[in-house]
Amino acid sequence: MKIGFDAMGGDHAPVETVKGAVDALSLIEGEIVLFGDELKINKELSQYKYDQKRISVVGTTEVIENDDKPVKAIKRKSDSSMVVGMKALRKREVDAFVSAGNTGALLAGSLLKVGRIKGISRPALCTIYPTMSGASVLVDAGANAECKSRNLLEFAYMGSLYAERVIGINNPKVALVNIGAEETKGTPLYIETYQMLKETDLNFVGNVEGRDVPSGKVDVIVADGFTGNIILKLTEGVSLSIVKELKNQIVKNSIGKIAGLLLKRNLGDFKKQLDYSEYGGAPLLGVNGLVVKAHGSSNAKAFMNAIKYAYIGVESNLVAEITEKIKTMPAFEAPVENEEENE
Amino acid sequence: MKIGFDAMGGDHAPVETVKGAVDALSLIEGEIVLFGDELKINKELSQYKYDQKRISVVGTTEVIENDDKPVKAIKRKSDSSMVVGMKALRKREVDAFVSAGNTGALLAGSLLKVGRIKGISRPALCTIYPTMSGASVLVDAGANAECKSRNLLEFAYMGSLYAERVIGINNPKVALVNIGAEETKGTPLYIETYQMLKETDLNFVGNVEGRDVPSGKVDVIVADGFTGNIILKLTEGVSLSIVKELKNQIVKNSIGKIAGLLLKRNLGDFKKQLDYSEYGGAPLLGVNGLVVKAHGSSNAKAFMNAIKYAYIGVESNLVAEITEKIKTMPAFEAPVENEEENE
Repeated sequence: MKIGFDAMGGDHAPVETVKGAVDALSLIEGEIVLFGDELKINKELSQYKYDQKRISVVGTTEVIENDDKPVKAIKRKSDSSMVVGMKALRKREVDAFVSAGNTGALLAGSLLKVGRIKGISRPALCTIYPTMSGASVLVDAGANAECKSRNLLEFAYMGSLYAERVIGINNPKVALVNIGAEETKGTPLYIETYQMLKETDLNFVGNVEGRDVPSGKVDVIVADGFTGNIILKLTEGVSLSIVKELKNQIVKNSIGKIAGLLLKRNLGDFKKQLDYSEYGGAPLLGVNGLVVKAHGSSNAKAFMNAIKYAYIGVESNLVAEITEKIKTMPAFEAPVENEEENE
Repeated sequence: MKIGFDAMGGDHAPVETVKGAVDALSLIEGEIVLFGDELKINKELSQYKYDQKRISVVGTTEVIENDDKPVKAIKRKSDSSMVVGMKALRKREVDAFVSAGNTGALLAGSLLKVGRIKGISRPALCTIYPTMSGASVLVDAGANAECKSRNLLEFAYMGSLYAERVIGINNPKVALVNIGAEETKGTPLYIETYQMLKETDLNFVGNVEGRDVPSGKVDVIVADGFTGNIILKLTEGVSLSIVKELKNQIVKNSIGKIAGLLLKRNLGDFKKQLDYSEYGGAPLLGVNGLVVKAHGSSNAKAFMNAIKYAYIGVESNLVAEITEKIKTMPAFEAPVENEEENE
């Protein structure tokens, strides 16, 4: 197995990308193929001891920047680490492609260079959402701001398979984010999607309100990309604010400081539970090849984990599983939106 | 001044409503008028010592339940505490009306029995959103799941006035919830609203992402009611989950337990900061009279605070201020949606 990895993507490339790749070798089997500036990558690699047979470099001369226009960048920067990597995925020279680069470009590149799975109208970002009882899956986390009910239906199928095959949740409970429990709640989009989900063979458990999202009582949280993105970032924001305020309260007097020292170890475990870098990456499901988006601010640990989950995704045959499962979706044959692809 | 109060609304009525009313007397000037079952209310009142001239009871024989259909309930249950209270508000027999009853019915009743302010197409729930640096205002918190850009524009005006007049924030920073900072981000609804907000004389500071909502860096958070409701409830859910997990981590060994005892006082302040009942109620802005929705699970403290904020709203002339300010809104004269009202 070969995991392709955009060594130039993210705020801390190539220092953290290369370190993450080297660290990932202990977690996976097979090889990692780094795409990017050969000189810079090799300079970083030279600092580490690792099995040289397991990491190779494909030299590229361009980088897609965060402020590049996605479609234009994909079309013009044909020797960028992202485009070359995705072409390699299409040709199955690599089995997955991980990148922390420009999200819009990664989405556009997936459509234009890799292509969609038959029956999928819109690929979606599927992210692991840490809960207090473990992990749920949130889909779409932001790839599609505006959605139709058919898109949400596809998200539900893909998220359910991801939860089952990659996270290992048996018969995952699928829920629709909403503002109330009743099936008549929410916008027309959500009311319609609810009815469609009832007709599937997914383990659909109804609506989940914002209050219950972090509890882990459902496994797959289905949302349009606007709502999903806000859920993801708000959760992060609230967690950070609370932890910060907690620290302020602890250190505000000397008794608190002593207690804080006593608690150091206990709070370390707590912090780990809130740490998003434990999960590292979100696959762009629906693409006909495993593309994984890592957070732009990823450090080596987050990259290592993104590579690990890409590996599990390949091992569990995720793309082929989605391709088969989506054929059982009601309205599978309905016309899907046309997007320019595979130019 | 007279604050009308639905003594039968909420999960813990009339025990907690009556206690909340009695407790509120120390925070406000003027009188409280309780609407509801006279016998039950008087039985509760008889337990307390208070200035009897300042609390009166208007007896009603019906109660709108949580599972009643809103419009039907408002039309049929004409002797319910909610309907009688809202009619009194319309006739200005009371200056505000506070209720923890059925949200949909309160919204329908506001439209049908009290009426909208001229130029407002949709009243919105405006809630105080506790942040680590104080309090922001979130509007709409859930009254309108499906919105148009004109609705969001109105929400911005009303939220800004609420922040200024009731919370006391000078020149409040108004922001649109979105999935990115750039003005081209989000759904067509949000892209259009951004452009409209730029043309106003509000202190519009652009988009705010989910991550920054809890930081308090903006004062007025404008969202459609679907997104706003999810933001509100998710924040509550994440806070509760973290506090619960924190407790688990502290008590998991004896060192932690000792530290926990030392921290008891510091963590008390922290808990208070997260306590939603400090704020108690959300006004339904845009109604031609001050209607305040209290949370269904409110306890006496939450009711006391809801009454306090209703009092501040009346004191600061909020409804008249909105009526004047909304006349300066671009497109004020545009046709507004027709809803049956003031039957």
